[in-house]
Amino acid sequence: MAKKVYVGVDLGGTSMMAVVTTSKGKILGEKKRKTRAEEGASAVLERIVRTVRDAVDDAGTKMKNVRAVGIGSPGPLNPKTGVILHTPNLGPTWNNLPIVDYLQEALGCPVYLDNDVNVGAVGEHALGAGRGCKNLVAIFVGTGIGGGLILNGKLYQGVRYTAAEIGHAVIQVDGPLCGCGKRGCAEALASRTAIERRIQEGIAAGRQSLIPEIMQQEGRVDMSSSVLAAALERDDELTQEVMADAARYLGVLVGNVVNMLDPEVIVIGGGIVERLGERYLGPVRETAEQYYLNQEDKDKVRVVASELKDYAGVLGAAILAKQMYKSAKKK
Amino acid sequence: MAKKVYVGVDLGGTSMMAVVTTSKGKILGEKKRKTRAEEGASAVLERIVRTVRDAVDDAGTKMKNVRAVGIGSPGPLNPKTGVILHTPNLGPTWNNLPIVDYLQEALGCPVYLDNDVNVGAVGEHALGAGRGCKNLVAIFVGTGIGGGLILNGKLYQGVRYTAAEIGHAVIQVDGPLCGCGKRGCAEALASRTAIERRIQEGIAAGRQSLIPEIMQQEGRVDMSSSVLAAALERDDELTQEVMADAARYLGVLVGNVVNMLDPEVIVIGGGIVERLGERYLGPVRETAEQYYLNQEDKDKVRVVASELKDYAGVLGAAILAKQMYKSAKKK
Repeated sequence: MAKKVYVGVDLGGTSMMAVVTTSKGKILGEKKRKTRAEEGASAVLERIVRTVRDAVDDAGTKMKNVRAVGIGSPGPLNPKTGVILHTPNLGPTWNNLPIVDYLQEALGCPVYLDNDVNVGAVGEHALGAGRGCKNLVAIFVGTGIGGGLILNGKLYQGVRYTAAEIGHAVIQVDGPLCGCGKRGCAEALASRTAIERRIQEGIAAGRQSLIPEIMQQEGRVDMSSSVLAAALERDDELTQEVMADAARYLGVLVGNVVNMLDPEVIVIGGGIVERLGERYLGPVRETAEQYYLNQEDKDKVRVVASELKDYAGVLGAAILAKQMYKSAKKK
Repeated sequence: MAKKVYVGVDLGGTSMMAVVTTSKGKILGEKKRKTRAEEGASAVLERIVRTVRDAVDDAGTKMKNVRAVGIGSPGPLNPKTGVILHTPNLGPTWNNLPIVDYLQEALGCPVYLDNDVNVGAVGEHALGAGRGCKNLVAIFVGTGIGGGLILNGKLYQGVRYTAAEIGHAVIQVDGPLCGCGKRGCAEALASRTAIERRIQEGIAAGRQSLIPEIMQQEGRVDMSSSVLAAALERDDELTQEVMADAARYLGVLVGNVVNMLDPEVIVIGGGIVERLGERYLGPVRETAEQYYLNQEDKDKVRVVASELKDYAGVLGAAILAKQMYKSAKKK
């Protein structure tokens, strides 16, 4: 009898990835594709099905050996009903999309859905920076700030599956406007979007900066993590200042989370930390430690970079598939 | 055979209380005493023993029918070792006090310890405003702000038993100085201490206020909740302003907690809400709702006053005793 496997899918605004894994999370095969969200939901759904089938081929196995598929998607979504409610990243055709029903029908096996940051937290907990720990908080810093909570060894979703909105914790009442309409959210102070806005404001106010030149050289229209890294490499003062502030705000957020949830590990993921590493994470950790109520937490709480990086979500989705499959079987 | 009972003890800076309950939390007897912390730890420990024995008498039963005693105490403390690490409220003789060992020896039954706000959350969850709910966050607003978390139906303590330090969540980076040495903690913005400080600052800056007169009339040296209530009753503008700000800050904190933990119920306890009720809680709720990321939470999250009031801690301690006794028996 052929070995049973699990599939994890990471659906993003630009690209999608599928991996086939053993029950322990060892990757047997994978496939990456562009999402092409502009083609609409049904085209994207077909591409997901093809990507899963290609990954299964790549693993040298067959769909009938797939026990379950897990999928991490931008939200908001409902893991229980398997419906994506709406995702600004993927456009209007994704409103109230019963993605789980569709994929179960097309793939002929159980499919489980959760949001991209939750599966990322599951991945880091099972196979990455939080292996073996009881409580882990994952914070993914990109254009937004997303969070995932592992509490008492399990993904914590809340009663309406809307927990872990760490990016929308207000840490500066009446601070800068956030994309969500509120003011002073961590996301409005420490995300890449916030960094970009502050650098643009600085330049508009007449500050010198190498950023426009670097963006032109790299052919970029947005201030990507690699643009920021290049500016820091060349000691661009404005970028240094703005990044130091952003790291400090993220450190305050980490301090709050530690004081609230008393975890062993805080995993920081996303493009900025992947690109800048300790240069960014060091100041985040330093600020966080100043905010710990229990100073012994300095030695006990690990604030570390994601280990799985781009694979956190897709591996977490495969682990989720296994966990959900096993828990459904028990019932 | 006589009915088996549990005892809960609430140890406070000014007074202590013990109740004897059935396994369902029905009160069979109780006793209250002054703490007299100035007499030192061993005198207070003896008073606790007497208070427990008196409550047992009051319940018409005997110590041999007591299955376990739960005690809620100011912290920091270690519930696992049963040691109070230090409590500013009770003075220097309470450093590293093995209260559980002492009481087990003196009372001849298992004794369980947790901090006063955690047992308060257990009480509200089992018998108060959060009956039957899965996730509850309790916020007690007094001279400080303490929190307790019930997640997935159980008290959430964290890995080092230091979770739920809600009062030290920073909501205003670089804001006013907190007793903990950091700036901008919720406690520095929304506790009774913060309210008192701001009213004093207002008066010192030449603002008119009825507060000094009311304090004199009531023979008070501190700005108690009843002083604040009397000032509001008489439309004291400074008090109105400061209370509105404090309620708003607490509302921001509630919003953060809802976005982070997605609970069904937020229970607000402590002197201010007990005294002012909806007059205070209404504005807290209104602000919190503005900060919910998921606007449907407005209809789904209850932000309510403590139902058990002074009895939240002592009943929670009795429930804790039952839970710990039963879980120890299982092992």
